Amino acid sequence: MSRDKKVSQEKPKEIKPSQEGLTVKKDENFSEWFTQIIQKTELADLRYNVKGFLVFQPWSVLSMEKMYYYLEKVLQKKGHKPYFFPTVIPESNLKKESSHIGGFTPEVFWVTHGGDKELEEKLALRPTSETAFYQMFSLWIRSYNDLPFKTYQRANVFRHETKATRPFLRSREFHWIETHCAHESEEDAFRQVKEDMNTTKEVLHDIFGLPFIFFERPSWDKFPGASRTFAADVLNPDGKVIQQPSTHMLSQNFSKAFDVKFKDKDGKEKLAWITCYGPAVSRIFASVIIVHGDDKGLKFPFEIAPLQVAIVPINKDDDKLIKKSKELKKEIEELGLSVEVDLSEKRPGEKFNYWEMKGVPIRIDLGLKDLENKKITIFRRDTDKKEVVPEKDAIKTIEKISKEFTKNLIQKADKIFEGRIKDSENLSGIKKIIENNGIARISFCSTEKAGTSCAAKIEKETGAFVRGTKFDEDKKLSTNSKCAICSKKANHIVYVARAY
Amino acid sequence: MSRDKKVSQEKPKEIKPSQEGLTVKKDENFSEWFTQIIQKTELADLRYNVKGFLVFQPWSVLSMEKMYYYLEKVLQKKGHKPYFFPTVIPESNLKKESSHIGGFTPEVFWVTHGGDKELEEKLALRPTSETAFYQMFSLWIRSYNDLPFKTYQRANVFRHETKATRPFLRSREFHWIETHCAHESEEDAFRQVKEDMNTTKEVLHDIFGLPFIFFERPSWDKFPGASRTFAADVLNPDGKVIQQPSTHMLSQNFSKAFDVKFKDKDGKEKLAWITCYGPAVSRIFASVIIVHGDDKGLKFPFEIAPLQVAIVPINKDDDKLIKKSKELKKEIEELGLSVEVDLSEKRPGEKFNYWEMKGVPIRIDLGLKDLENKKITIFRRDTDKKEVVPEKDAIKTIEKISKEFTKNLIQKADKIFEGRIKDSENLSGIKKIIENNGIARISFCSTEKAGTSCAAKIEKETGAFVRGTKFDEDKKLSTNSKCAICSKKANHIVYVARAY
Repeated sequence: MSRDKKVSQEKPKEIKPSQEGLTVKKDENFSEWFTQIIQKTELADLRYNVKGFLVFQPWSVLSMEKMYYYLEKVLQKKGHKPYFFPTVIPESNLKKESSHIGGFTPEVFWVTHGGDKELEEKLALRPTSETAFYQMFSLWIRSYNDLPFKTYQRANVFRHETKATRPFLRSREFHWIETHCAHESEEDAFRQVKEDMNTTKEVLHDIFGLPFIFFERPSWDKFPGASRTFAADVLNPDGKVIQQPSTHMLSQNFSKAFDVKFKDKDGKEKLAWITCYGPAVSRIFASVIIVHGDDKGLKFPFEIAPLQVAIVPINKDDDKLIKKSKELKKEIEELGLSVEVDLSEKRPGEKFNYWEMKGVPIRIDLGLKDLENKKITIFRRDTDKKEVVPEKDAIKTIEKISKEFTKNLIQKADKIFEGRIKDSENLSGIKKIIENNGIARISFCSTEKAGTSCAAKIEKETGAFVRGTKFDEDKKLSTNSKCAICSKKANHIVYVARAY
Repeated sequence: MSRDKKVSQEKPKEIKPSQEGLTVKKDENFSEWFTQIIQKTELADLRYNVKGFLVFQPWSVLSMEKMYYYLEKVLQKKGHKPYFFPTVIPESNLKKESSHIGGFTPEVFWVTHGGDKELEEKLALRPTSETAFYQMFSLWIRSYNDLPFKTYQRANVFRHETKATRPFLRSREFHWIETHCAHESEEDAFRQVKEDMNTTKEVLHDIFGLPFIFFERPSWDKFPGASRTFAADVLNPDGKVIQQPSTHMLSQNFSKAFDVKFKDKDGKEKLAWITCYGPAVSRIFASVIIVHGDDKGLKFPFEIAPLQVAIVPINKDDDKLIKKSKELKKEIEELGLSVEVDLSEKRPGEKFNYWEMKGVPIRIDLGLKDLENKKITIFRRDTDKKEVVPEKDAIKTIEKISKEFTKNLIQKADKIFEGRIKDSENLSGIKKIIENNGIARISFCSTEKAGTSCAAKIEKETGAFVRGTKFDEDKKLSTNSKCAICSKKANHIVYVARAY
């Protein structure tokens, strides 16, 4: 076996967290912007001494914990029950579903020893947990009364990526949720796929503020072991899409491999239909940073901000200001929001820049003059504007901003996203859209094997990929539409984009 | 290297979750009671096909998530910031502190391959994360202004236990929190140890209802790499104590190994003083089950119950009862409590037993007669009594019970615990206390090496161990006290107990 020396990792330049802002613009040098924002706002330290692994710092962890909270709340509401499965999966489990193991083995980290003893069977650090869940499903599911059987777990998964890693976007360990569900019928399973699509909309769009398209992937781009794969693509400013939650119709493939059977109403033993869904929280966090951040720094949607309100007393040694700051803090906390009074040694201007870079939604600048005039100055990071309000209206105003904030972020993000999607009818048109960092919508011959040569042509000419069809959209195709590449009859509307 | 075939694991008998209650009594056959309760109440499935690893089921996960919530809340309030460190630690890190690696290497799971490639350096699945955190501390800490530097992470840790494993109590993967803090001085570090002790009291005792003694361990029983080790011992009905959170004075041992230095007020570069603390949530959960459970099943402290209120409409097909159940559910939810209406196919009696076994704190039995009389029957699992109250007082009563509930559990547990601690003055007395499943308090010569022969004598004669001294208690020792074993001058009051 050859030694693992080839893999490149984006070399972490040692950028110190500092009061200095970002030195590049997001739209001009996105890659550098992303590297700077991670390090300058202290989201993660990239200097850990194992390739592709990072140390998540408090500013990302606090936000990701809130992301977990919203995801789990919605999943539990929809009847998913939480489990913790072991981090390790025996090799023999992974081998049970042949296409699954084919897809994952090259990326598996293997545990081979316990102390100085070789293990009887080597253990995979789970790259995903189908082969752990479904062997237990076969023990737990007996009858149609047990179905749908809806589970999830919050867990870390591990992939020995052979591509270059990028912090949050593609790391060798990531933090995610995976749901696994067993159903009576194909229809029930597909209903679950649609439910997953709605969950993605309710949480990723409506709370995290991420615009996306939920695609069905072409047959050549399915999850190993799935019969159909669906996934949400989010767009980066550099025109590359990132795959966010994917949901898979595993049909009866894994039920066969793991003997997941149930006795149906008619008394017959049947194989269960299985679906799974995987929101990768640490990767979704990357999209939150990328979609909302700007040239001044981070912008957090209100609900998932690590800190929601910062209070800056302009003169940090003035007793009256400190007293007022603490009073305000208490009142704001009573709204259920997180607040901090900044009593650090920095100058006020530095503090303003610091909290803006950190993406705190609301900042209250408290000066002596305001105090005399019974006014409060509120800076909001959604619009980057200051509002001066009478002291007595402060709490009411903060409550109002807290409700508008994420909506404003969503509106802006949606507009940018929609503006990037353009129709095209031929290869040169697609090329132009891709070069302008957009997503091309085209008529296309086939998302089955038949379409691969057209997909290959697109990839060769533009560096972009057929990402798939959008749910229910093929209906809009007129009967005489032709494939933008081969001019044969078009059966689908597909989207073409560059990707990570 | 020899193959790992020796390790025994408590063989999971296949006990089916069932309406039938427990068939043994906790005080008569504790070991069997523990195995039954885990399986019959569906806390964990022990049939996962890797030795020493288990599948945590919803009923334990929901409660453990609440335990995490309270622990993290208190830690954050005390200034600890959350991190996520990688699950893997390079071998070279583990080797940097010589006594640490000596203590942990025999128990480390090693990752040696990524895909089919051998890794350049083998990676440990973290058995604990000192050697990951402190290399980053050396990058993050610069000056006394950065201190105290207080961190924590929620994480899974892995130990290839060579002793027999027991679910929750000693598994090969467990769910925990570890805190790591750097300080300016030994005094500050010791202040942290006392803070950790208070955290243990505030959370483990006052919320989870666990009585414990916080010991300083004898010098021969320290954490590998620590200069002093403190730990909370909780008592099982079989007279064995379980070590719950431990906190360690690592002094400057790891600072030296990992170069954790800071510039002090006097301009001099100094080594930081380090402490760490590790509440193992999945193990604490075991104590919650063991301390509060009874012959009918689980009893959860109110705050960490997976479900707090169950409503059982006696006739589940009666529209009026269903309607009233749902109204009550809504009102109780408005108190911030979790509620379920049981509309399953079971008979009412079965439902009552089921919820009692599951340890739900409050059950509302809703019958037609009660409905007519505008009464509500409330069963509370703390006292195992029913209360019939006017319908209009239902919510008020539930609120009242929710506030008394855990206090009642604590009171009962404290009484049992205190009753088990007995003073003794000689070996035969110790033996008697240990045989009656108690903890013996004795005068003792030395917790340094000098005392080992007395400790060995105790172990040989009684099977029990010197667990340590209790904070500040040695002061109570009279000047002419003698060691209960060797009769030389006693310097300590120590506690002796059997242990897992």
